[in-house]
Amino acid sequence: MLSARNQLPATVKSVKLGNVMAEVVMTVGDVELVAAITRGSAEAMNLKAGDVVNAVIKSTEVMIDKS
Amino acid sequence: MLSARNQLPATVKSVKLGNVMAEVVMTVGDVELVAAITRGSAEAMNLKAGDVVNAVIKSTEVMIDKS
Amino acid sequence: MLSARNQLPATVKSVKLGNVMAEVVMTVGDVELVAAITRGSAEAMNLKAGDVVNAVIKSTEVMIDKS
Amino acid sequence: MLSARNQLPATVKSVKLGNVMAEVVMTVGDVELVAAITRGSAEAMNLKAGDVVNAVIKSTEVMIDKS
Amino acid sequence: MLSARNQLPATVKSVKLGNVMAEVVMTVGDVELVAAITRGSAEAMNLKAGDVVNAVIKSTEVMIDKS
Amino acid sequence: MLSARNQLPATVKSVKLGNVMAEVVMTVGDVELVAAITRGSAEAMNLKAGDVVNAVIKSTEVMIDKS
Repeated sequence: MLSARNQLPATVKSVKLGNVMAEVVMTVGDVELVAAITRGSAEAMNLKAGDVVNAVIKSTEVMIDKS
Repeated sequence: MLSARNQLPATVKSVKLGNVMAEVVMTVGDVELVAAITRGSAEAMNLKAGDVVNAVIKSTEVMIDKS
Repeated sequence: MLSARNQLPATVKSVKLGNVMAEVVMTVGDVELVAAITRGSAEAMNLKAGDVVNAVIKSTEVMIDKS
Repeated sequence: MLSARNQLPATVKSVKLGNVMAEVVMTVGDVELVAAITRGSAEAMNLKAGDVVNAVIKSTEVMIDKS
Repeated sequence: MLSARNQLPATVKSVKLGNVMAEVVMTVGDVELVAAITRGSAEAMNLKAGDVVNAVIKSTEVMIDKS
Repeated sequence: MLSARNQLPATVKSVKLGNVMAEVVMTVGDVELVAAITRGSAEAMNLKAGDVVNAVIKSTEVMIDKS
């Protein structure tokens, strides 16, 4: 069990590889979620469109915007 | 416009105030999302159950878990 | 209102685009501040030198160094 | 030399200790900056109002808001 | 597989619960590592001294200090 | 003294420069640790294989995984 409490079921929409980083766009329900992870991780996980994954976020990294 | 690309429509479910921090549990669609923000922010925003907000997350803070 | 409490008035000095990330150098008063955001955000915001912005930082991400 | 590029000269304005965390309010020029660090760190550094410090922020943690 | 590349085998040395957060001190080899997670996570994982765990850190959160 | 409590003695194994970011692989005892910092920092610090450094991590960025 991982202490990061936010684990959102998601589907990978696209993976864009840079030299060092990779941008992974996912859908969570009908909302888009973007992750910036290292290229090394994206390749090690063989991430590709259509993959069913969890988007994982530590709660100290979540902000709230109230209009 | 804020550079943090992830802005998820959410509803506040509960707010727990500590001395320095506050834990805010939200629902995003049918998934729960937990934020740990400062008590000062929670009070300044007068956050309370039922508030309609956006959960905001910088993409460099999003990880991916692939089974 | 965003829970991230640190919102520093800044002026963009330079924007360097990588494949996935972008480095944005700003001045806050007479101090320089560097942000690493996604290229996607930098482009969506059409960030360029001279832009008047706010540098936004969640308080859990601020460290303190005391000599 | 620390890789975190943002090192802002600051003066401690107040220190609030919780059980686990501590909230430190600083002034950077004429702007306020809030840090949430562990109580252990605040005590180990004997942080108190009037201390001259550097606020240190990794560039991947800086967001930008453009109106 | 989690994209966070840093997974350090560790042993829990102590767990201190606050209202909202928890401080977990671990040993990694002969070095101490401190995590600040939510109390909710610490309790859900029933974390206690002696537990064998992994300390998990996203690479964008690791800084480098070179003398 | 820096408030980030985790300072792990490490040796640089490799440095990979991207346009904006840099990936630095280090060894901490017999474990590998990966940092994603800005290219600017890696160059300013003249980081190279064999350098003896400290890997620095704020405790709010450390997660725990318990099987």
